[in-house]
Amino acid sequence: MEANFLEGGVVSEVKPNGNGKPNGKAHTNGKAHVAVTQEPELRATGMPRLHLAQMVVQTQRGPELIDITEKVQDMLAKTGIKEGNVLVYSRHTTAGIVINENEPLLIQDMYRFLERLASPADTYSHNDFSIRTVNMCEDECANGHAHCQHLTIGCQQMVPVVEGHLALGRWQRLFLLEMDHPRTREVLIQIFGI
Amino acid sequence: MEANFLEGGVVSEVKPNGNGKPNGKAHTNGKAHVAVTQEPELRATGMPRLHLAQMVVQTQRGPELIDITEKVQDMLAKTGIKEGNVLVYSRHTTAGIVINENEPLLIQDMYRFLERLASPADTYSHNDFSIRTVNMCEDECANGHAHCQHLTIGCQQMVPVVEGHLALGRWQRLFLLEMDHPRTREVLIQIFGI
Amino acid sequence: MEANFLEGGVVSEVKPNGNGKPNGKAHTNGKAHVAVTQEPELRATGMPRLHLAQMVVQTQRGPELIDITEKVQDMLAKTGIKEGNVLVYSRHTTAGIVINENEPLLIQDMYRFLERLASPADTYSHNDFSIRTVNMCEDECANGHAHCQHLTIGCQQMVPVVEGHLALGRWQRLFLLEMDHPRTREVLIQIFGI
Repeated sequence: MEANFLEGGVVSEVKPNGNGKPNGKAHTNGKAHVAVTQEPELRATGMPRLHLAQMVVQTQRGPELIDITEKVQDMLAKTGIKEGNVLVYSRHTTAGIVINENEPLLIQDMYRFLERLASPADTYSHNDFSIRTVNMCEDECANGHAHCQHLTIGCQQMVPVVEGHLALGRWQRLFLLEMDHPRTREVLIQIFGI
Repeated sequence: MEANFLEGGVVSEVKPNGNGKPNGKAHTNGKAHVAVTQEPELRATGMPRLHLAQMVVQTQRGPELIDITEKVQDMLAKTGIKEGNVLVYSRHTTAGIVINENEPLLIQDMYRFLERLASPADTYSHNDFSIRTVNMCEDECANGHAHCQHLTIGCQQMVPVVEGHLALGRWQRLFLLEMDHPRTREVLIQIFGI
Repeated sequence: MEANFLEGGVVSEVKPNGNGKPNGKAHTNGKAHVAVTQEPELRATGMPRLHLAQMVVQTQRGPELIDITEKVQDMLAKTGIKEGNVLVYSRHTTAGIVINENEPLLIQDMYRFLERLASPADTYSHNDFSIRTVNMCEDECANGHAHCQHLTIGCQQMVPVVEGHLALGRWQRLFLLEMDHPRTREVLIQIFGI
């Protein structure tokens, strides 16, 4: 696999046959054109290792997207793992892990999107402390909307590792997404490979 | 990594330097405070094992969230895997796997949220058996809404395993989510590690 | 684990005790019936291998679902991996990976659902090139809706491998989902196992 695999992520630079055109395995799938530009290549075999790291994020508002890409890449570099994958895992039900673009205006769009999806202004029985009896804490606050958003966001992302780097595309960044009020959040980073 | 890693999931108890304060690697990311509380630690190396288990769930309504956390943890314990991960996988397109909180009022909120997201009362061409010719079965019923909900929910969750336990946070529980009418559902549990 | 595990995905054919009935470990969970039909079975141990493949998809419209199941299964077969898993990963922030049913009318329903979720007709600051200064490219176009949809869709799917096959259920197919305008898309396929 050529070095351009992870450098820039510009697909048009992939030259499977050295001539910049898809190879003979291309076919149409419905109307779309699908080309296998790299048949499965054995990247690594041998005794694998499992590393675990942790970060804690003190969020400042909800919703909030906090870019953790560099920290995760730094952790990966420290392990020396060259081929494998990284599982980024939020241990929460109202904070998730997202892969998207880090563009300030878009981030505001995504906050508005989440509010339309499940607004904190809507009515949630989970927020009615006059009737709720289960899982009540000292610092309980109204976060039914955050749980509902979390259903569609999830709490994890798995990223392939190629040549010691996260195989993120050109615009892909890893974020913690706070959907609740400002809180202290714990993220596990499990790094696996050879 | 200290035992408190998995005990309670209370982030404020994490004491990376033994003094309860984040270590020197903390920095601000926009406004948020991000601290690496555990640099990548080698948890295991050696010949790994892959185990596979299966459960079948007879659901009683749609939507329905069925807590399968204890069953998955029991399966993990039987394998003796100490470090690795568990892939919980629904083999369906109208039933998914969810991580969220098991609080009865919240569960009702989530049912209402799913209905707002894609209501069974909306019109779906998939439900028009007068024109549909593909993938028709004997027991076909109107479930276009469930397929659309499934797009955002997904059919799997990957949970890290630390010290022989699912590294779920304090409020995190694993659920099968039925989005269709009552059906028999199959869940694969792949347990990997050392 | 019997061969019927992956053949057809019809749950009612699972016969854990050879008599077609759930075994003694069944219990009720709320109202639902949960049965462990296969306790964790050691499927493989030994030196694992990591393979990586790549496909490029030229999409023709947005949204568009492109079925890539056969290509991924072919790649898996070429590796000879019998037990493990496959990570299918889109290196994009406006194209994702989906598991759902390939039924033509349903696919049209899903396009309409995505449009209701985040319509291209809505207003997004990301699309306002008169004020935006970050991550601007030559071929920039209005795709705020695609980023918002991507938040809920994600860019990856992990599928277990059993007996050399993707353990997809009867109706499950793997798709690339284009949410933006027609573009060239790169998908990584990481195949891991023994």
